[in-house]
Amino acid sequence: MNDHKVKAAQMAVELIPNQAIVGLGSGSTASIFIDLLAKKAHEESMDITCVATSGQTQQLALGFGLKVVDIDAVDRIDVTVDGADEVDPYLNGIKGGGAALLFEKIVAVNSQKNIWVVDSSKKHPRLGSFKLPVEVVKFGVHHVYNYLKQRDLKPVYRQQEDGNYLTTDSGNYIIDIDISRVDDLPKLADELKSLTGVVEHGLFIDVCDVLLDGNTGESIYRKDL
Amino acid sequence: MNDHKVKAAQMAVELIPNQAIVGLGSGSTASIFIDLLAKKAHEESMDITCVATSGQTQQLALGFGLKVVDIDAVDRIDVTVDGADEVDPYLNGIKGGGAALLFEKIVAVNSQKNIWVVDSSKKHPRLGSFKLPVEVVKFGVHHVYNYLKQRDLKPVYRQQEDGNYLTTDSGNYIIDIDISRVDDLPKLADELKSLTGVVEHGLFIDVCDVLLDGNTGESIYRKDL
Repeated sequence: MNDHKVKAAQMAVELIPNQAIVGLGSGSTASIFIDLLAKKAHEESMDITCVATSGQTQQLALGFGLKVVDIDAVDRIDVTVDGADEVDPYLNGIKGGGAALLFEKIVAVNSQKNIWVVDSSKKHPRLGSFKLPVEVVKFGVHHVYNYLKQRDLKPVYRQQEDGNYLTTDSGNYIIDIDISRVDDLPKLADELKSLTGVVEHGLFIDVCDVLLDGNTGESIYRKDL
Repeated sequence: MNDHKVKAAQMAVELIPNQAIVGLGSGSTASIFIDLLAKKAHEESMDITCVATSGQTQQLALGFGLKVVDIDAVDRIDVTVDGADEVDPYLNGIKGGGAALLFEKIVAVNSQKNIWVVDSSKKHPRLGSFKLPVEVVKFGVHHVYNYLKQRDLKPVYRQQEDGNYLTTDSGNYIIDIDISRVDDLPKLADELKSLTGVVEHGLFIDVCDVLLDGNTGESIYRKDL
């Protein structure tokens, strides 16, 4: 287990108040957080209600004895803790390496506060080293692909190990694009979401409120930027 | 069979050139068009390739002997003929009464020309008599519903006869909203599509190129507006 991830997850657990409704992210650092949160909730008899961003996360949280409810069973989420595949100095980031970006974003936009836990390797001066996942309806996906190609975004269908296109939990395909030469990311985010056939994309702009870096122990707050 | 619908469908068939790739809409008037198109293609030995907007339309077209291919098997669609639930004098309209709005819009935006066939009852000075369908991802749908309610758009989940929420071909829910008091429809269209969890909506702005009215025999071209 990566010490820096554990450190970041520990820092996140400190920020969870009693009686919180907590959104649980997906991925390796989020998994460590879930483990630590469950331990703390048990030891301190905290009343914590969780909302999961993937089936895998839900199983994990239930396994650790956390209370997990459907997102539609709560009117708000107090705080969500999730990882990120890449994050810039403005706390904007790319998520979706694990193909759970749609549910992660739905939980995030319905959360009062979003905490991202990362190690320093995820922090880059600008986004684009990581490919941006775009979730696209299967019907007519080729036309979206062609559009992205014409836009010079070097689209690549995400495939499973068997070579078939990966299908998300919502039955869509993922097209990964190269945004390393795009300067105006908020504009790109709006453009992508506006496309007919595009369900969601992995650009998270103005979402993360607190970035916790497990290497440096730094907490960076959006409001201080 | 409604004479006005037949008249409108006949007018549409006249506009289909040989060797066209034709998008086939869904619904009653589109069905009449498919019947008439198949007859003409057969009688005049036309080479017509079709792309369907629903499984029902595909079965119908195949049954009439038309050649139907997957939307991703063609690089473009020459002309699509579809109905509309409501259309205004600017040829903007609402579609989705049959819950096929997502595939209908994907076919429409990839078509060089869109022809809508209606009877006069569908023409209104402004949109909003018909409820606007919004297609929403199941996960977190309640939060989108709450947002639409706060926006005073009177959301109603579309239900099946058995009382369960209707699920679309893409596995989403439909929320019908009341836009009768909304003045800036292009702005609303952008707002709805931008919402996380919203896949598509039934506002078709700047899509219809030719409106054929089976009652009056009128052909209204967007370029003449």
